[in-house]
Amino acid sequence: MTNETQMANAIRALAMDAVQAANSGHPGAPMGLADVATVLFNRFMKIDPTADKWADRDRFVMSAGHGSMLVYAINHLLGYDDMDMNQIRNFRQMGFRTAGHPEYGHAKGIETTTGPLGQGISTAVGMALAERMQNARFGDDLVDHYTYVIAGDGCLMEGISHEAIDFAGNMGLGRLIVMWDDNSITIDGKTDLSTSTDQPKRFEAAGWHVQSVDGHDKDAIAAAIEAARKVSDKPSMIACKTIIGYGAPNKQGTSATHGAPLGDDEIALTREALGWPHAPFEIPPKVYDDWHAIAARGKAARLDWDKRLSASGKADEFNATLAGPDKAALDAAINAYKHRLSQDAPKVATRKASQMALEVINATLPNTVGGSADLTGSNLTKTEGMEPVSKGNYGGSYIYYGVREHGMAAAMNGLSLHGGFLPYGGTFLAFADYCRGAIRLSALMGLPVPYVMTHDSIGLGEDGPTHQPVETVASLRAMPNTNVFRPADVVETAEAWQIAIESESTPSVLALSRQGLPCLRTSHTDTNMVAKGAYVLRDTAGERDVTLIATGSEVEIAMKAADQLAAEGIRAAVVSAPCFELFAEQDADYRAEVLGTAPRVGVEAAIEQSWGKLLGDNSAFVGMTGFGASAPADELYEHFGITADAVAKAAKNLL
Amino acid sequence: MTNETQMANAIRALAMDAVQAANSGHPGAPMGLADVATVLFNRFMKIDPTADKWADRDRFVMSAGHGSMLVYAINHLLGYDDMDMNQIRNFRQMGFRTAGHPEYGHAKGIETTTGPLGQGISTAVGMALAERMQNARFGDDLVDHYTYVIAGDGCLMEGISHEAIDFAGNMGLGRLIVMWDDNSITIDGKTDLSTSTDQPKRFEAAGWHVQSVDGHDKDAIAAAIEAARKVSDKPSMIACKTIIGYGAPNKQGTSATHGAPLGDDEIALTREALGWPHAPFEIPPKVYDDWHAIAARGKAARLDWDKRLSASGKADEFNATLAGPDKAALDAAINAYKHRLSQDAPKVATRKASQMALEVINATLPNTVGGSADLTGSNLTKTEGMEPVSKGNYGGSYIYYGVREHGMAAAMNGLSLHGGFLPYGGTFLAFADYCRGAIRLSALMGLPVPYVMTHDSIGLGEDGPTHQPVETVASLRAMPNTNVFRPADVVETAEAWQIAIESESTPSVLALSRQGLPCLRTSHTDTNMVAKGAYVLRDTAGERDVTLIATGSEVEIAMKAADQLAAEGIRAAVVSAPCFELFAEQDADYRAEVLGTAPRVGVEAAIEQSWGKLLGDNSAFVGMTGFGASAPADELYEHFGITADAVAKAAKNLL
Repeated sequence: MTNETQMANAIRALAMDAVQAANSGHPGAPMGLADVATVLFNRFMKIDPTADKWADRDRFVMSAGHGSMLVYAINHLLGYDDMDMNQIRNFRQMGFRTAGHPEYGHAKGIETTTGPLGQGISTAVGMALAERMQNARFGDDLVDHYTYVIAGDGCLMEGISHEAIDFAGNMGLGRLIVMWDDNSITIDGKTDLSTSTDQPKRFEAAGWHVQSVDGHDKDAIAAAIEAARKVSDKPSMIACKTIIGYGAPNKQGTSATHGAPLGDDEIALTREALGWPHAPFEIPPKVYDDWHAIAARGKAARLDWDKRLSASGKADEFNATLAGPDKAALDAAINAYKHRLSQDAPKVATRKASQMALEVINATLPNTVGGSADLTGSNLTKTEGMEPVSKGNYGGSYIYYGVREHGMAAAMNGLSLHGGFLPYGGTFLAFADYCRGAIRLSALMGLPVPYVMTHDSIGLGEDGPTHQPVETVASLRAMPNTNVFRPADVVETAEAWQIAIESESTPSVLALSRQGLPCLRTSHTDTNMVAKGAYVLRDTAGERDVTLIATGSEVEIAMKAADQLAAEGIRAAVVSAPCFELFAEQDADYRAEVLGTAPRVGVEAAIEQSWGKLLGDNSAFVGMTGFGASAPADELYEHFGITADAVAKAAKNLL
Repeated sequence: MTNETQMANAIRALAMDAVQAANSGHPGAPMGLADVATVLFNRFMKIDPTADKWADRDRFVMSAGHGSMLVYAINHLLGYDDMDMNQIRNFRQMGFRTAGHPEYGHAKGIETTTGPLGQGISTAVGMALAERMQNARFGDDLVDHYTYVIAGDGCLMEGISHEAIDFAGNMGLGRLIVMWDDNSITIDGKTDLSTSTDQPKRFEAAGWHVQSVDGHDKDAIAAAIEAARKVSDKPSMIACKTIIGYGAPNKQGTSATHGAPLGDDEIALTREALGWPHAPFEIPPKVYDDWHAIAARGKAARLDWDKRLSASGKADEFNATLAGPDKAALDAAINAYKHRLSQDAPKVATRKASQMALEVINATLPNTVGGSADLTGSNLTKTEGMEPVSKGNYGGSYIYYGVREHGMAAAMNGLSLHGGFLPYGGTFLAFADYCRGAIRLSALMGLPVPYVMTHDSIGLGEDGPTHQPVETVASLRAMPNTNVFRPADVVETAEAWQIAIESESTPSVLALSRQGLPCLRTSHTDTNMVAKGAYVLRDTAGERDVTLIATGSEVEIAMKAADQLAAEGIRAAVVSAPCFELFAEQDADYRAEVLGTAPRVGVEAAIEQSWGKLLGDNSAFVGMTGFGASAPADELYEHFGITADAVAKAAKNLL
């Protein structure tokens, strides 16, 4: 018979001791949640620590990421082979897997990076949606898992939680079970300092199944989880009334346990209070045995599942969806498409070009999942034959995310982490600001999510400065491990999409125009030129007098300026620079060849900030210096002086 | 007797005709909301178009900012002198006040910029809070106004609305009345595509008073507003069931009316259906008369109020709070404080230095309002004697915003727009991403809100990469009209605060260290050196061999590197560059003098992107190239090579 009290106390002891050793960290949440987590894992979780990527495992997301020691303690006790006691002893230290917040990819059994509050629950919504969508495609025998989340007060105060909860309710994600750590404490003190929201009522309003339990009553917790699992048409929230820092006689129930070590004295008293006489980082064999039994049960389930997969006749298809895109097929399809484009040379907005590329991609790959934050007709993210995903109808491949940019981005992270799908989603580029928190996690986790961001400059016209990105491209280029594409025409857009889809560990932002742009790449190349980041689009006959470097809709302007300059006998090369990040990765020779030694003029309908590395001391920039305005697009370009005349003039000033 | 039906039809006609003339815009919302808005203005609003900044006016916020023509039509009909028919005819055109979305400062009677959904309702929460706080200070005779909001489905789907609604409920803002335009339509189609939330129940869960009415039944609307005004301890939400595009016989009730002109044929049919035979942009005198009566009533109320203010004995004090900070007093206090600092030379984290500066500022100025998004003890935003603001107790000056960065930023915009207060608020710098949408509106509207953003680099240590800003400073420097300060020591922090508080139309971000930093400015200057943006902190005896430019916590490292170089006979000047934006505003001679002609090394524990203008071709940069890690701060600086040794080496490589 397992002793769940001691199983839970093992979590508490490891948490308080590791935080004390690090002299930094958050003991309160793991100690308060130890009973909830023990019951969840001991009686329900289906995981196999020897096969941490098993597709049909239950997902566990610690949304309150500062409680990372809960995750590390559990994963150590379960016997994950990369989480030995040395990792626990070196919590928050350089070179160890036990980072201050759980980092995806640092250790097995961490399903997503959490820490920025609200991201975990919102990412889990994407995982739970992926489960239903995968189930719709492969059936109950192969896809039958739950997504469990522990969320704190902070997670539920953050705005992103609203977007996620409403979306999950509307989608009827019955396999999503959120346990709210209702401990009435935040950093600043008691929660009633800043909130008086009736959370159960709030979740009910969003269409959730809701229960409330004593978070230290193990049978009550188990009964609630059991009941939640039985509700198949609604996500479930279980309000678990807990005592933060449970077991610490003088500090439990106060914000003093939230984010600081308990101190040696209080830890000694806690050991006594809990009946846990063991030395720090010492776990009795019986406790290990009880936790290992969970792992053994999971392994047996996984072996059964392996047999079912083999017998299903769908193994190849199932595994293919997990393996990422078929690059050979995609390459052939994109190249055939580029051939046609170079001949037809259509003048289209790059948002339309994006849709055209997606028609090719979605026809080639079976598991792309499109969507938009209520701008489907503007972002042009939906292609022929895509059926919406909705409650009870998970066989579709297009998601109406609603006016929820942040929730969409987090859900896409969840879809990507879950595996089996290639999500992409759209909004206006200006509203990248609304989902930046989740884009940053795409980048930090290395998830290859493409963000379709249209209306990418003052070129959107009359909607005015709130909707006109001027600093947004720079702000996204600033983000590590993020490829920002600003394609100039229909061909570059196809190439950017190919890179975005084939990416293995880098998210992509496609900044796309509202306005029509001529096809500039009228000679077909099999080579993906966008993959070079920047390249000479128009070369000069003799030595260059000046190099004009532009992106997106401004490449057309640079080409016209080059014509004007040519008429005056000035040899201007034009470099299209659709992706600064990929250009920075090219070798020095190539970069030097593209940029040349002549003076340079940069052209982008945005601020200059990100251009430092492309321009040098002898250079000029034609772009924006402040916010935009509300007027027709052509007038705005004139008004802000982003014209071929201005580029030509700037070039001549450098000669 | 007023004819409210025709008053409302005037709004509808102006909206559909202006959108048609612009061939761009959103007729659906103004047409659907015309009855609600007419009743609100005709029976309740207290405004004087001849005194648009009257302190005790009711505030009206059109949160669904795409329905801007509702605002312009009303303000035209009321007789605002800057909103003649020529403005309406030139909706969305260059040089006119009638921008695509309502832009604060472009025309009278626009209380805040809206368009990015959810911002209006969240900013209004700040306005309503300011009203109660001002009332607590000056009494019912002088402060007795309401804040009315019209919010759409999109506003209520956005995460920020959750933060604002919960906060308003907890604060018990009885003077806040939100009318929800419940038209069941979003851009993508019917709202049930993406949401099934029971909004009334959701608002009730957050502690609001809730009613539901037919949004075309004028007496029912009036009764609901009347009832809402009578509830003094809870904010009110009135769900107004409306028909989008009301009056357009073939298009009303569909997303076709949302964001596109109705077309000439449908407009003709709408005229017929509404009984509005007048030509485009023609308003019958009786309708003007009815609207002008609202203005006259408001003017009379304002004249009465003027008398009460004069008689109150508080006029000077009241007006002083509206006039901005007392710069002379502040300057004297800050200089006395700087004198002490230069002598004492305390080594403190700049977050602590910020608190020390705030002690001086809050003791000098009566109307600063501090706060933090649940990080009071980390951001150090609370000073001696600050009492919390809470429901029914609005006399305090410190706000526990909860874990709601976006809601906090929007509320600060509202506090600033309302007048009478100087709000500032804190969070971790990494979570600037969570409130960027509202920071952008601070910048676009020119609101001098200071953002206190601590834990500004890998120097925060063990919390790891989710909490370590590496791209955040660059991403904020990218934003137009935003001063980003990264002070190096306790003196620079005081100077940065003085600029932030005295700013009239630019928000400030103070990026502050977690870790202690030595005092580098040990010789007192009355001159505010931070106001120059960058300055020579350590000069060389002879000609410079190299210039080291650093910000914030890295100035100390640059100083050590200069010592090392000096020991090797290399003359290195050190430039402290706490504010790139202010440096860019200096004249060319000063900038050239500071930067010098020697090779340059930039040092910042962040990515290089924003350094383009400070470094030249012959330069190097010592900083971050990707995300951080979880470990003690000192080890991280070593690990990422941001050390005096590395700076000295980089300098020597350039010689």
